[in-house]
Amino acid sequence: MAKTIAVSPLAPASFPKLPVIKGVTFATIAAGVRYKGRTDVMLAELAPGTAIAGAFTRSATRSASVLDCQAKLGGKADQGAAIIVNSGNSNAFTGRAGVTAVEAITEAAAKTCDVPQARVFTSSTGVIGEPLPFERIVTSLDALKSALNENGIEAAARAIMTTDTFPKGAMAEIHVAGEPVRIAGIAKGSGMIAPDMATMLVYIFTDAAIDQAALQNLVSRHNETTFNCITVDSDTSTSDSLLVAATGASGVDVTGNESFSSALESVMRDLAHQVVRDGEGATKFVEITVEGALSDADAKTHALSIANSPLVKTAIAGEDPNWGRVVMAVGKSGAAADRDLLSIRFGDVTVARDGCVSPGYNEAEAAAHMKGQELSITVGIGLGAGRATVWTCDLTHAYIDINADYRS
Amino acid sequence: MAKTIAVSPLAPASFPKLPVIKGVTFATIAAGVRYKGRTDVMLAELAPGTAIAGAFTRSATRSASVLDCQAKLGGKADQGAAIIVNSGNSNAFTGRAGVTAVEAITEAAAKTCDVPQARVFTSSTGVIGEPLPFERIVTSLDALKSALNENGIEAAARAIMTTDTFPKGAMAEIHVAGEPVRIAGIAKGSGMIAPDMATMLVYIFTDAAIDQAALQNLVSRHNETTFNCITVDSDTSTSDSLLVAATGASGVDVTGNESFSSALESVMRDLAHQVVRDGEGATKFVEITVEGALSDADAKTHALSIANSPLVKTAIAGEDPNWGRVVMAVGKSGAAADRDLLSIRFGDVTVARDGCVSPGYNEAEAAAHMKGQELSITVGIGLGAGRATVWTCDLTHAYIDINADYRS
Repeated sequence: MAKTIAVSPLAPASFPKLPVIKGVTFATIAAGVRYKGRTDVMLAELAPGTAIAGAFTRSATRSASVLDCQAKLGGKADQGAAIIVNSGNSNAFTGRAGVTAVEAITEAAAKTCDVPQARVFTSSTGVIGEPLPFERIVTSLDALKSALNENGIEAAARAIMTTDTFPKGAMAEIHVAGEPVRIAGIAKGSGMIAPDMATMLVYIFTDAAIDQAALQNLVSRHNETTFNCITVDSDTSTSDSLLVAATGASGVDVTGNESFSSALESVMRDLAHQVVRDGEGATKFVEITVEGALSDADAKTHALSIANSPLVKTAIAGEDPNWGRVVMAVGKSGAAADRDLLSIRFGDVTVARDGCVSPGYNEAEAAAHMKGQELSITVGIGLGAGRATVWTCDLTHAYIDINADYRS
Repeated sequence: MAKTIAVSPLAPASFPKLPVIKGVTFATIAAGVRYKGRTDVMLAELAPGTAIAGAFTRSATRSASVLDCQAKLGGKADQGAAIIVNSGNSNAFTGRAGVTAVEAITEAAAKTCDVPQARVFTSSTGVIGEPLPFERIVTSLDALKSALNENGIEAAARAIMTTDTFPKGAMAEIHVAGEPVRIAGIAKGSGMIAPDMATMLVYIFTDAAIDQAALQNLVSRHNETTFNCITVDSDTSTSDSLLVAATGASGVDVTGNESFSSALESVMRDLAHQVVRDGEGATKFVEITVEGALSDADAKTHALSIANSPLVKTAIAGEDPNWGRVVMAVGKSGAAADRDLLSIRFGDVTVARDGCVSPGYNEAEAAAHMKGQELSITVGIGLGAGRATVWTCDLTHAYIDINADYRS
């Protein structure tokens, strides 16, 4: 990395204690893909019977590994599987060489882990457009295999970081008919973050037993309200990948179980929020809710227009309750709005109502809310019942410091 | 203004010498709308017979003055007309009070200039959401009327500035059957600049004689390739207005004349470029051309996606030929692209071809191009014949300085 970046002020106090997920083991290594003096490859081996679902960037220029993962989803779960991820080089826009690298890595990992190549998923994150030195990954596989252990998930979270200032983990535990079911997930991402999807890598593991199609349905649905509702800078990566692996080792079938669905969504939302909290240069975590739109889709369009506006984001950085810029962002979004029906709240302070400044508005109160680290902006459209919440961060000098001279 | 901002390094050396346009006179005054110690209102009076065409923001929250102007376009040209513009307060999102202000200003100006109220166009630019003290404008009308003169266009350009660091003017002169026809225009705008339309105020005057419908047709068409092809920050104002007034005083009918059409387009493009050159915090003027897209519309979608990407814009600020971010921006745009057909040039340096780094690519050459003030990025999509060029600037610390604590 070009320079040492301090840990985000919005970071959690510490990495959470994640439960062991039976049926999955982890290993990491410093393979020297690009970075020096840190781990940069992680391997996760999954027990036979593991169902794997996923969601991916819809970028037209997505990388070879993304295309390969997409093609492999939905395969038969009776055999084992593996996930191998490197940081430092995204293997994106590398032409034919990119496909060759994916082939070489997945073929070698299949042999090392004794699983079908069609059940090996790989991701790469880092610089775009430089050939991936895949031999460094392939020659690390024996060492990775021998290091596999069920407690390695935090180390895995660290190995996949790029501009991240802290490793990201989240967990949930529920009981189904008295039996525990556990979910543990990790993520990386802090810039080039926008739907769809949240421009990052996410791996979630659970010992639940669940039909692959049912799992895929849950992942696709919850992705829309979690990772596809965050934005740091409106830029969408070519490598976004989310994989959810259910080993079934708990012996508890959760197909159709609403508690499991909610627990999975909460882990996904937690990781999504952590990505925003690690947004490049972020000093404020901002929840933006739009209600009263003609549809939920319209509400999300308005909310993302606000969240992506450089003028809104710089005003937040400046702790300025500049609601005029919120009006502007609603107006440009393309979704339906009536200027004279809009209402806007910063925190609990009603700033505007019926299209103009609220009669009792006290700017000092709104300004006080803006000084916090956790902000909320609520916009009422006044046209219907559509509703959406998205999360973003402010746009600061540090974002420019990081991106004006950082390559990877 | 919150602080003194130096003149943009991309500014022209001086304000151009604009020709007198027969049939239009100008006056300005320091009415104290918001700013102290500078002019903030301009009046332009137009001779009977003047045809007036225009283009406006499509924001759903556009201001009362924009709605009023839109309703008045296409009126009968046999009587005189007036344009009155203030800076410092945009009269946007001011509810019923906003409509009252527009009514009061246009009614008073109609009386002062002895023209129909339906032929008085007003614009306001500046802070959103605060009531416009329109009485200060109304009570200035007599002084403005008595100060009207045909040489006041540069002063008018200065009176409408907000965050602008230099006044913007452009001209053209053509000959039709040996007779001179002149065009002179002014503009303001430097932030909240994105299609549609270029988030600014533009007033163009010509002594040509032209049918109103023909003029409107030209304005709408050229708007798409000029003001709707620039972006500073992807944020669209609620007040964007372009008015083009043809007084007919030259006695030369230009209806259907291609030279006039080209001259008008050149003035519009010149003013559009000047707005980008005054982009908040800009240090680089960047021309982005996309060719080989499936359609011109697709090419423009790709080009604007590149031009609006914070990661592309910060890389330009850092003089980094980071073509991977260009690939990313093409991928996320939503228009058709094939990763393995893309080619990218920075200036004359071919960086990528057929989806990967060009064999002879020399990063030092590309980096040298990036050190200039005038940059070009050309992207070949390889799918068709669609083509578009847009203009933008870099994203620098100064943009954040200006917008994190500036209100107006």
